[in-house]
Amino acid sequence: MFPNITVPTLLVDRKKCLQNIERMAQKAAANRIPLRPHFKTHQSKVIGNWYRSFGVDRIAVSSLKMAAYFAEDGWQDITVAFPTNPREIELINSLAARIQLNLLVENHEVLDTLIAQLKSSANLYIKADIGYHRTGLSIQQFTIIDALIERIQNTTHLNFKGFLAHAGHSYQARSKAAIEEIHAHSKNAFIQFRDRYQSDFYDLQLSYGDTPTCSIVDDFSFATEIRPGNFVFYDLAQHHIGSCTMDQIAVAMACPVVAKHSLRQEIIVYGGGVHFSKDRIVLPDGTMHYGKVVSMEGKRWRIPDNPAYVKSLSQEHGIIKATKSLFEKTQIGDLLFVLPVHSCMAANASKVYYTFDGEWITMFSMNS
Amino acid sequence: MFPNITVPTLLVDRKKCLQNIERMAQKAAANRIPLRPHFKTHQSKVIGNWYRSFGVDRIAVSSLKMAAYFAEDGWQDITVAFPTNPREIELINSLAARIQLNLLVENHEVLDTLIAQLKSSANLYIKADIGYHRTGLSIQQFTIIDALIERIQNTTHLNFKGFLAHAGHSYQARSKAAIEEIHAHSKNAFIQFRDRYQSDFYDLQLSYGDTPTCSIVDDFSFATEIRPGNFVFYDLAQHHIGSCTMDQIAVAMACPVVAKHSLRQEIIVYGGGVHFSKDRIVLPDGTMHYGKVVSMEGKRWRIPDNPAYVKSLSQEHGIIKATKSLFEKTQIGDLLFVLPVHSCMAANASKVYYTFDGEWITMFSMNS
Repeated sequence: MFPNITVPTLLVDRKKCLQNIERMAQKAAANRIPLRPHFKTHQSKVIGNWYRSFGVDRIAVSSLKMAAYFAEDGWQDITVAFPTNPREIELINSLAARIQLNLLVENHEVLDTLIAQLKSSANLYIKADIGYHRTGLSIQQFTIIDALIERIQNTTHLNFKGFLAHAGHSYQARSKAAIEEIHAHSKNAFIQFRDRYQSDFYDLQLSYGDTPTCSIVDDFSFATEIRPGNFVFYDLAQHHIGSCTMDQIAVAMACPVVAKHSLRQEIIVYGGGVHFSKDRIVLPDGTMHYGKVVSMEGKRWRIPDNPAYVKSLSQEHGIIKATKSLFEKTQIGDLLFVLPVHSCMAANASKVYYTFDGEWITMFSMNS
Repeated sequence: MFPNITVPTLLVDRKKCLQNIERMAQKAAANRIPLRPHFKTHQSKVIGNWYRSFGVDRIAVSSLKMAAYFAEDGWQDITVAFPTNPREIELINSLAARIQLNLLVENHEVLDTLIAQLKSSANLYIKADIGYHRTGLSIQQFTIIDALIERIQNTTHLNFKGFLAHAGHSYQARSKAAIEEIHAHSKNAFIQFRDRYQSDFYDLQLSYGDTPTCSIVDDFSFATEIRPGNFVFYDLAQHHIGSCTMDQIAVAMACPVVAKHSLRQEIIVYGGGVHFSKDRIVLPDGTMHYGKVVSMEGKRWRIPDNPAYVKSLSQEHGIIKATKSLFEKTQIGDLLFVLPVHSCMAANASKVYYTFDGEWITMFSMNS
């Protein structure tokens, strides 16, 4: 099976991806707001094109270089959902000249750079901290927010659009109820931004949404767009959080089997930290794993009742704690298929995908 | 400072690397055995060349593709220190035709493939398990070992060279004494291989050595070569183990500062899991960090007495828990320099280095 796969390779189930995209596009449509998918998960022009048939015409990315990569493929409305890096002003200028570039600000220093050096127009969002406390300004910091907005309005080429928020603490949830509770707090915090600034800005934009809340919650009528990313692939971390079923996970790492150790019932695969990254799931009892093994049946994989798991990862090795039946039927030279803990990081490490149709799909590279 | 650095960039201190290489080359020379450095750490032809002036003429790598990359640069004696992957037999044939290729075997299935399909000569090492229990055969499994050797000897193009061992459990040490204790056990286990097979093989090879033991232990007269890799850069994990001083660490990630949050005394840098990987150090009290901040002084960095640390990593963000003085003197747009927890993984993620002389150094890419 898969004779073209000789090294660890991320297999993507296109059908599942399309289902995941369709479900999210329908949710956005039901709320009468656009879906602005975050493309940092797949980082691929080919996969990016899969969204277009669902009416998606705007995206988010996590770096300016990634924005440039997708701009090359015709994406005209791109939000860089990361604090604007003043060291990349040249690239910002090159992008702002070609596309509708949406940038984040949360301090005067970055605004100084944009006012002084930006040559084309750009939309600015102020990053709102609605409880995650990673970046952004809370509503209590309205003095800074007001000052930033006033300065933006006094320029000719910077347009204040609204606020962008990321309730990243939803990743700490471990049930649908927990996701809903975090969402309720985040939503209330975000609505305070709306209530304070809506009267002054007729078209105030409120960009919201991470994969856990967008997967579980239905009502996003308080926002003007949702911006999830991971949902296209999902992964074991999302399943652990409560965002998806195991069946919705759309990528699996194909790993060549290179050794077996019957005394420990362990299978050694080619597939390590440089392929998966080292994200892991720690269960309440303290045990941890780095991925779960699925069984391949034709052009789909099936989730076993009691799947074998990746016990540890070195740079290139993965150690699979096998079930008895998996150990017995697996031969050296076979491939084992592992659902990753964090699909964004596995995709980023992989730099290429393989489909059930035998297509190799390339992706963005930081150094290209 | 460093105007050419606009995105997270791994800065390499060439002088420290040369000192680290020289120290290890001297240790090998004192034992009258060759140093076969593991190049998976740096994965770069340019850095590979730095070893040549210390007499290094043989290397280890962690994949066949990496072997091909270094073979292009004139390395003629390469050990792939990973269980042989039968799915890459074409690449094995291409390499074996051009260089002295040294492969690992630990089971009959891989030997079947090599006997049936290898077209040029190759050296085979049997992987010895001397206590790490990841891969390899223990001395108690001598029945399998004997059978493998007998089959190898019955071929014309496969040469049995000896045993290769990796005491990877030395990475669990947290002091020099602990490293020495693990080494004592590992050495005794390896000597059992020598004692059993030496009389039958005049030139029996015993390849040994990881960075912790090779950094701390002096006597390697029981081995025929040492094979450490990480020592060229070292990192915070090696310092935590007890292998090196902070001053010996030869790489630091330059990260653009994109935001500051005075309420939390946190600095947000561009530099996340896709740049560092997510290796971390967990201290006995349960606190953890993903890197430590050094201060740059001209063409070197200095270790502060109480360094700020990376508190968390997202895909692109790093959150630095700053000291008061670092917070106050750091401006948005500056670079902060972070010693990585695991230099091999950070280098692999980085795909490029920058030197104090302003040189960009490229490296191996899995998909090139």
